[in-house]
Amino acid sequence: MVVVMAPGATDEDVANVVARVEAMGGEAFVSKGLSRTIIGLVGDVAAFHHLNLRTLRGVADVHRISDPYKLVSRQHHAERSTVRIGPAGRQVPIGPETCTLIAGPCAVESREQMLEAAQMSRSAGAGLLRGGAFMPRTSPYAFQGLGLKGLEILADVGEATGMPVVTEVVDARDVGVVAEYADLLQVGARNMGNTGLLQAVGEAGRPVLLKRGPSATLEEWLMAAEYVAQRGNLDIVLCERGIRTFETSYRNTLDLSAVPAVQATSHLPVVVDPSHAAGRQDLVVPLARASIAVGADGVMVDVHPFPDQALCDGPQALDGTALRELATAVRRLPPALGRRTGAPDRSPA
Amino acid sequence: MVVVMAPGATDEDVANVVARVEAMGGEAFVSKGLSRTIIGLVGDVAAFHHLNLRTLRGVADVHRISDPYKLVSRQHHAERSTVRIGPAGRQVPIGPETCTLIAGPCAVESREQMLEAAQMSRSAGAGLLRGGAFMPRTSPYAFQGLGLKGLEILADVGEATGMPVVTEVVDARDVGVVAEYADLLQVGARNMGNTGLLQAVGEAGRPVLLKRGPSATLEEWLMAAEYVAQRGNLDIVLCERGIRTFETSYRNTLDLSAVPAVQATSHLPVVVDPSHAAGRQDLVVPLARASIAVGADGVMVDVHPFPDQALCDGPQALDGTALRELATAVRRLPPALGRRTGAPDRSPA
Amino acid sequence: MVVVMAPGATDEDVANVVARVEAMGGEAFVSKGLSRTIIGLVGDVAAFHHLNLRTLRGVADVHRISDPYKLVSRQHHAERSTVRIGPAGRQVPIGPETCTLIAGPCAVESREQMLEAAQMSRSAGAGLLRGGAFMPRTSPYAFQGLGLKGLEILADVGEATGMPVVTEVVDARDVGVVAEYADLLQVGARNMGNTGLLQAVGEAGRPVLLKRGPSATLEEWLMAAEYVAQRGNLDIVLCERGIRTFETSYRNTLDLSAVPAVQATSHLPVVVDPSHAAGRQDLVVPLARASIAVGADGVMVDVHPFPDQALCDGPQALDGTALRELATAVRRLPPALGRRTGAPDRSPA
Amino acid sequence: MVVVMAPGATDEDVANVVARVEAMGGEAFVSKGLSRTIIGLVGDVAAFHHLNLRTLRGVADVHRISDPYKLVSRQHHAERSTVRIGPAGRQVPIGPETCTLIAGPCAVESREQMLEAAQMSRSAGAGLLRGGAFMPRTSPYAFQGLGLKGLEILADVGEATGMPVVTEVVDARDVGVVAEYADLLQVGARNMGNTGLLQAVGEAGRPVLLKRGPSATLEEWLMAAEYVAQRGNLDIVLCERGIRTFETSYRNTLDLSAVPAVQATSHLPVVVDPSHAAGRQDLVVPLARASIAVGADGVMVDVHPFPDQALCDGPQALDGTALRELATAVRRLPPALGRRTGAPDRSPA
Repeated sequence: MVVVMAPGATDEDVANVVARVEAMGGEAFVSKGLSRTIIGLVGDVAAFHHLNLRTLRGVADVHRISDPYKLVSRQHHAERSTVRIGPAGRQVPIGPETCTLIAGPCAVESREQMLEAAQMSRSAGAGLLRGGAFMPRTSPYAFQGLGLKGLEILADVGEATGMPVVTEVVDARDVGVVAEYADLLQVGARNMGNTGLLQAVGEAGRPVLLKRGPSATLEEWLMAAEYVAQRGNLDIVLCERGIRTFETSYRNTLDLSAVPAVQATSHLPVVVDPSHAAGRQDLVVPLARASIAVGADGVMVDVHPFPDQALCDGPQALDGTALRELATAVRRLPPALGRRTGAPDRSPA
Repeated sequence: MVVVMAPGATDEDVANVVARVEAMGGEAFVSKGLSRTIIGLVGDVAAFHHLNLRTLRGVADVHRISDPYKLVSRQHHAERSTVRIGPAGRQVPIGPETCTLIAGPCAVESREQMLEAAQMSRSAGAGLLRGGAFMPRTSPYAFQGLGLKGLEILADVGEATGMPVVTEVVDARDVGVVAEYADLLQVGARNMGNTGLLQAVGEAGRPVLLKRGPSATLEEWLMAAEYVAQRGNLDIVLCERGIRTFETSYRNTLDLSAVPAVQATSHLPVVVDPSHAAGRQDLVVPLARASIAVGADGVMVDVHPFPDQALCDGPQALDGTALRELATAVRRLPPALGRRTGAPDRSPA
Repeated sequence: MVVVMAPGATDEDVANVVARVEAMGGEAFVSKGLSRTIIGLVGDVAAFHHLNLRTLRGVADVHRISDPYKLVSRQHHAERSTVRIGPAGRQVPIGPETCTLIAGPCAVESREQMLEAAQMSRSAGAGLLRGGAFMPRTSPYAFQGLGLKGLEILADVGEATGMPVVTEVVDARDVGVVAEYADLLQVGARNMGNTGLLQAVGEAGRPVLLKRGPSATLEEWLMAAEYVAQRGNLDIVLCERGIRTFETSYRNTLDLSAVPAVQATSHLPVVVDPSHAAGRQDLVVPLARASIAVGADGVMVDVHPFPDQALCDGPQALDGTALRELATAVRRLPPALGRRTGAPDRSPA
Repeated sequence: MVVVMAPGATDEDVANVVARVEAMGGEAFVSKGLSRTIIGLVGDVAAFHHLNLRTLRGVADVHRISDPYKLVSRQHHAERSTVRIGPAGRQVPIGPETCTLIAGPCAVESREQMLEAAQMSRSAGAGLLRGGAFMPRTSPYAFQGLGLKGLEILADVGEATGMPVVTEVVDARDVGVVAEYADLLQVGARNMGNTGLLQAVGEAGRPVLLKRGPSATLEEWLMAAEYVAQRGNLDIVLCERGIRTFETSYRNTLDLSAVPAVQATSHLPVVVDPSHAAGRQDLVVPLARASIAVGADGVMVDVHPFPDQALCDGPQALDGTALRELATAVRRLPPALGRRTGAPDRSPA
């Protein structure tokens, strides 16, 4: 931590800062410039926060130097992690050596729709199946999902087609039941700051897919992951899904810079969801290709056998034709970048 | 709803849209321009959403015309509402005729701190007392609040100083206990999209203070209020607390345009929290004055007897001197704008 | 300046930074923490920039400590400035003791329209008259202004109604001719980064009204003012006019926090333009009141005798009724805040 | 155009809108819903703007339906364009069949530096050489470029290494001299709204590289291109270079969704500049790969033989090692996506 004193700060003001830091057991190094004095603090940064240094007379600014997250940082865990999803023997990896396709409909609507979407996804190279049973909607009048029945369908279809399944949990009270059916628990973008939910999934004994909030900084996103990790669960996959900007031609602006930037600072794998970012089908395949090329550890897309009949987000769902185009990219690009496509482990159990 | 056809759309494409709308029981009015055809839809807008018109061949765009919220809209409830907080006989109003000051510390830290802050607040003209017991924090390592003990202190001090109290509830599972102690339940900015929590406070039998999410549009904010209202609770006070922008000189950018804009479209009262928006004390009093002048129905500020000892957000808390400056504005400005300062009802019970 | 070394930086890396700084004539103070080393730099900050310290091995980050602007900073010019507009003997002040109303139509359309708008403005308490002759438009197909003829009308009407005039200059090549007619040269929001224009108005011998760019940080805005100041012209009035955000209910989001924040760091006066920020008439009067209350040194509004016939920005122009409402605020609020309304000097010449 | 009437609009209000539209020679189609009436307008949209329909009694909103740009739209020019840069016989194409690498230092510093950077760039597969002579800087105290001498060096080195050159022009008064030396005139991000400059380059007889403003919508960007096109110059290459968001880990947030979205609506080629977007070297190669994969028609990167000695933007410049990594991507990815790397034409002149 660095304390920057105001130009008019007195020697007494500087001494006051130093005294408080030392009373907390820290060390304070004073550098006097011509117009400004700066004080470098060494010791327990968390404790320094309680000093409210910014409120002291003569203090102009306080800069934090080190990252506030610890468990998810690469600082003490330099190697990038691989998270393995699904039952032993047919786990699907998400990590630095693979690029895993996650596909399926936005919402589970019926067994038939789900099965058809799953078969399409599998043919395209998907390793994991997605589908929403509890739907977080902006409007209380929109389709809210099939709930428990949706979970059962999803799990059955995942079993039938050989793909572990991922689904969203929107309420801490539902974590138990969702964890019975899902292999990967998704925390959605609008719940990234719901700390009760983060703690509940941190204790559920399942890997977690944590979406970035639509206006979250990278640091806030990693702090949300830290909430999960702190409860003993380090099997976290981060998912970039677009941020809110002023542009209205697409729903959100996919932030692909976040992928290498987060991979540089955290050991957790990072996947990208171009479907929810774009909100329109014609951008999904180009953005999925870009996601693979930027180095994402996986890509998650919406798929629907009949987008015009979808109960949720039809305009962004890939149909068969678009999905085949994506399949080509999923086959060709990862090898060109030194990765393999993520699929169930073939190693002897 | 208006459907805009693409320049190359055929007569068949237009007929297809019309047929689907009519099959849903709606009417479709076709306007053929030189290069474009537009189709005006009349009927059940919610049903039209399920048509996924955007996915149909020849459709370029779909514009929604009417507001998606109903219960909180002024369309069928033209008069602006007043929400009354606290026990019968000494309720404090928040509505178009008053400008109510809500003050208190960010976090309840101890009985002494709370009592002192309450007395300062009351002297400054506050009608309601605030204080956090369950704290939503970005970092799992930050002070998380005193919990139940904090609620008890807050309620006692509110009772002792004659002010109804407002406190945040961060988890749907805590709504019951918080509602036992609090007169006004706050849903914080990062939980604006937590629909389970919105529904729970909608059923708790207490007025709700709903903060705007830091990147929420006005429409999304009102849809969150609609979630509360749909559960039968229309005693909702909206609170603008700053949005996230690129500017780093203050924590958030207070959006005062939102106050008259929301008041024009919703009947709910709107208050402003300049403390959390600014994150620095020197901006709080000017922004509080501006909030009153723009027509806010109330202002909520952080107050602490000793900001340098605060366990939470010390740098933004008003101390005694700044609070007295605010008190002057709270006394002078509302009358100059045709309002009175919000205080307990003096009407015979 | 503070250099933060990466966790794995070696002693050699630290020594390399120190050596480069010392070779530039600076001093480097090293503070060694448990996991990080920080180096405080003292000396010529501008020179340090050329060291590209961020590119050196072991350097994690470089924080600048002091403001990059000098001439417009309060650091060496603590007292806030007053800029005086217009010919000697009837100058209108913009500064900390007054709150000056600037009003007039977006565009000069005809002598009649201009005269009527000027009389309305004057009745409402305006001290300065605005009107556009060279119009910066997003579309090349929109009305581009009357040019020289518009300048003549504006100057004549200003003379006839006793108000100094302000008008925009959009091209460095036009600065000479505009300066012949205008008392205050406006640099528009989209030209805030047009350094050639900034330098040209800096040499024109007239006060400058510098609008904030729609996505400019406070620091960038002050750096643009520094470009003007560096050419010898310190008669600069800053104008906040809204920033671009994700909200679409109004054209831009007026950032009133900028007013006290800039006044704290720069000695230049700051006025606010709520008309261009909001883009809709119903928000202009509330936002103008808020601007006065937040401490703005002036307010600038669009006025048109017949908004439905305006050639530019009709939907945001105040008509007679709305203007009278504003006039009340301009009369009442400044005195309640210890200021007088800005009007021509009545001091003996 | 669609006019949406307010819920309380009267028949007279509707008739008034219709009458005004018809007086302008347009047609108005009225669709009456249960709670709202909408009016579809057919005819000369530009003329309708002058009606100020938004200011009329009973009008709630006005939606524009068609794009406001014409010359750069695909509507009347469906095929995507290829712009050819450089002297006849060795022109370098930028268009849908190629992916062209543009590389070079941010600023021309000396003949030696420029020559070395050019040779590095050429080895990496660059078809065009970049280098700044007139530098737009946020600070008046920063290096402003070598000016005319820089242009001479750039042109000489381009000639010597066989690459056409691109350089920025920051002032309309400099267009003539820059056009004598440069094959492609760059208009920088902060000048995207400088209409005088846009018109000047539109008349200069050289292709133009138009960067997107850091907070420009796609529509505003294309309107800026329309300003150039309207002066008779359709040889325009658009360049995405990042938008301003709240994220501070990188300088700007590269918006790769803009590439396919603009290509869908405009026939102009689109290239991407990941160096200025990221502002840090470690993100440049991943983002360049993503740019190619998303379908950009070219990529422009900063290159410097010794980034730690660069006079401008050293921290983002690729050194030899990073450039070789990029070269691999430039060789492999375009063919995997059905394109060839952009290089001088080998077709017989």
